Amino acid sequence: MKTDLDTLLQSYAFDGLLVVGAGDHNPAMMYLTGGGHFTGELIKKCGAPPLLFCRMMERDEAAKTGLPTKLIDDYKPIELLKQAGGDVLKATVMRYQKMLADCGLSTGRVTVYGRTELGAMFTVLNEVQAAMPGLTFVGETGNTMLMEAQLTKDTSEAARIRKMGQITTAVVGQVADFLTSHKVQDEVLVKADGQPLTLGEVKSRINLWLAERGAENPEGTIFAIGRDSGVPHSSGNPADLLRLGQTIVFDIYPCEGGGGYFYDFTRTWCLGYAPDEAWKLYEDVLSIYNQITSELKVNAPYKAYQQRTCELFEGLGHPTVKSNPATQDGYIHSLGHGVGLNIHERPWSGVSAGEADRLVPGAVFTIEPGLYYPDRGLGVRLENTVWVNPEGGFEIMADYPMELVLPVKKE
Amino acid sequence: MKTDLDTLLQSYAFDGLLVVGAGDHNPAMMYLTGGGHFTGELIKKCGAPPLLFCRMMERDEAAKTGLPTKLIDDYKPIELLKQAGGDVLKATVMRYQKMLADCGLSTGRVTVYGRTELGAMFTVLNEVQAAMPGLTFVGETGNTMLMEAQLTKDTSEAARIRKMGQITTAVVGQVADFLTSHKVQDEVLVKADGQPLTLGEVKSRINLWLAERGAENPEGTIFAIGRDSGVPHSSGNPADLLRLGQTIVFDIYPCEGGGGYFYDFTRTWCLGYAPDEAWKLYEDVLSIYNQITSELKVNAPYKAYQQRTCELFEGLGHPTVKSNPATQDGYIHSLGHGVGLNIHERPWSGVSAGEADRLVPGAVFTIEPGLYYPDRGLGVRLENTVWVNPEGGFEIMADYPMELVLPVKKE
Repeated sequence: MKTDLDTLLQSYAFDGLLVVGAGDHNPAMMYLTGGGHFTGELIKKCGAPPLLFCRMMERDEAAKTGLPTKLIDDYKPIELLKQAGGDVLKATVMRYQKMLADCGLSTGRVTVYGRTELGAMFTVLNEVQAAMPGLTFVGETGNTMLMEAQLTKDTSEAARIRKMGQITTAVVGQVADFLTSHKVQDEVLVKADGQPLTLGEVKSRINLWLAERGAENPEGTIFAIGRDSGVPHSSGNPADLLRLGQTIVFDIYPCEGGGGYFYDFTRTWCLGYAPDEAWKLYEDVLSIYNQITSELKVNAPYKAYQQRTCELFEGLGHPTVKSNPATQDGYIHSLGHGVGLNIHERPWSGVSAGEADRLVPGAVFTIEPGLYYPDRGLGVRLENTVWVNPEGGFEIMADYPMELVLPVKKE
Repeated sequence: MKTDLDTLLQSYAFDGLLVVGAGDHNPAMMYLTGGGHFTGELIKKCGAPPLLFCRMMERDEAAKTGLPTKLIDDYKPIELLKQAGGDVLKATVMRYQKMLADCGLSTGRVTVYGRTELGAMFTVLNEVQAAMPGLTFVGETGNTMLMEAQLTKDTSEAARIRKMGQITTAVVGQVADFLTSHKVQDEVLVKADGQPLTLGEVKSRINLWLAERGAENPEGTIFAIGRDSGVPHSSGNPADLLRLGQTIVFDIYPCEGGGGYFYDFTRTWCLGYAPDEAWKLYEDVLSIYNQITSELKVNAPYKAYQQRTCELFEGLGHPTVKSNPATQDGYIHSLGHGVGLNIHERPWSGVSAGEADRLVPGAVFTIEPGLYYPDRGLGVRLENTVWVNPEGGFEIMADYPMELVLPVKKE
């Protein structure tokens, strides 16, 4: 949690942290500032409060974060540029040196975060480092210190994710109502004008209904039918029609406006009826979903359930990534992932899992078993997002039925 | 333009380029692939077509780009991890070495682009460089090669921006209709239930109406009234009421779904009536807007018009950044900027302007003079986006009236 930051900085042997980039759509900056319409730098020395550097034009936005702020303009960028002989890079490096010094970080190990344009910052960090011999920027790969802080959510973070869950399931309900309100002709849904409904039109409605509720959908939606439903990350072809009896994988993962907390949710639907082989896959996935959720234990390693899921699916005769990491049929991904300011974050259940990837109180994670047979035009995935509450109980953050078949009106 | 890439690589003495990150909300990747729901690497050697590396699960999405693709899975990440003794960073570095070698870039100067998490890539690039002694990654600062390519838009890019202009002005019209449909009580707009309308409610509608048209609004909207209208990048306080006779700066800059081409547009409104000092500022800004647009000449340096704007405003008695770079009153920003896959890109009119920042055919740029007096609760800005067509003519990309006062219904 955020309150652990100083402890974590110490345990990772960091003297401080630097975050760069915008206040929105930038998880690290959002986490440490609450977000806003500004772009700048946040520097925190271990044991001291963070300092947010912003431009004069964005001072009011930066002030809304409630953090101590300092104007970049106070470093007199135009004078620095003159001192640097007109070399913008050199002037930027000089400003970074001054900002770091003002935060007591002229030396030491400083970890860097932020979603930003890579090229320029690659050079700036290397040049600042070269200009400050006692200073080392650490770019953490894999599981970072910040991701460890973010693994556990406090009550206010959980409340924001739960609210996104309510928005998500409300929109999923609207989509179900929208689909079932259509007539059927030649086995596809048709609109009042007799034209077939397309996946693209459904997706536009999803974005609209999310926007109506103040949510954003920066990562898009998976709404894939038939063969595409058998390729887990195919988002679906906008020109496809809504054909009866085909599996539709509907995976929706919107976030708060401005790029805040996400929710993650999947259902699989067949319109009108489900062929036997779709029913069979659905029942297998549902039974594994139920089995796994019944076995969850607080503080258990998340990846143990990935192992368990593979074993259970193999017991039902499906290939899995356990016996064949390159398989394109059967159970071909991991059981889930943490959800927060990133749609995918710790805890991990797959190969990236470390010692800390446990279902500890505060963890928010998904359970999303699935089966995929693209050559048979079949895919089934069922997913809920779960919170481990402070008492160690597992709470599904938003309820929604698991039904496979959506009834349709026949003419 | 995109067709100039090989020429530009040569003139910048680059042997190739590397782009990392997602296919959406990542301007460099979007520019070179057309975008999509995938995350990976794009590598292009000078003179050769680009190669897009993607994960198996996203192969269909990557294939939609029409580019040659290669599966990251073909490099057998799990085997690499074993060879690296379980060190994920080392395995990633080994994969990068192989990918670069497969593109003929084991040596040379490779420029890097992409909006991504900084920390990890800072380390990966430095480690790859250390492992490949003949290879140098260049992180361009300031005006990059890619930004030079993007400075000029081809006809299909201009058509996409124009369409965003139509969407933008249609939504602005809806906002005007929405505001003027309200009643007035005690000098503020009130809803049917007698409660005052807030800025936050107006902004929700803006997002909704943009979503209805398939647009996204990742950078938010400036809709600021009174003192906030006098701070150019204040986005406005959601709790503020719509008070008559106060300047409202409405700056809207949405983009295509998935993070594509932007449009940029500003009007300033007063509800019901405008006080004399608001009228005066509006007339000054409008006269400068008209003067500058009448003076535009193809191939002229954009920044010459920033100089000219400062002179004209000073002639009217306003402080400007020309005589006082730190002023918070008067004309305090630059005349405009290029618009494309970034809301701010080349050509530049301000301090970042270089030799190439000219109003050449293909350039898409804004003209947005403004005057700000926060302590008097006043701000006025007027902005249109302009395209220099292939014949060298200046076309405003979407028409909309410049009126200051929006009439309201009195009880």
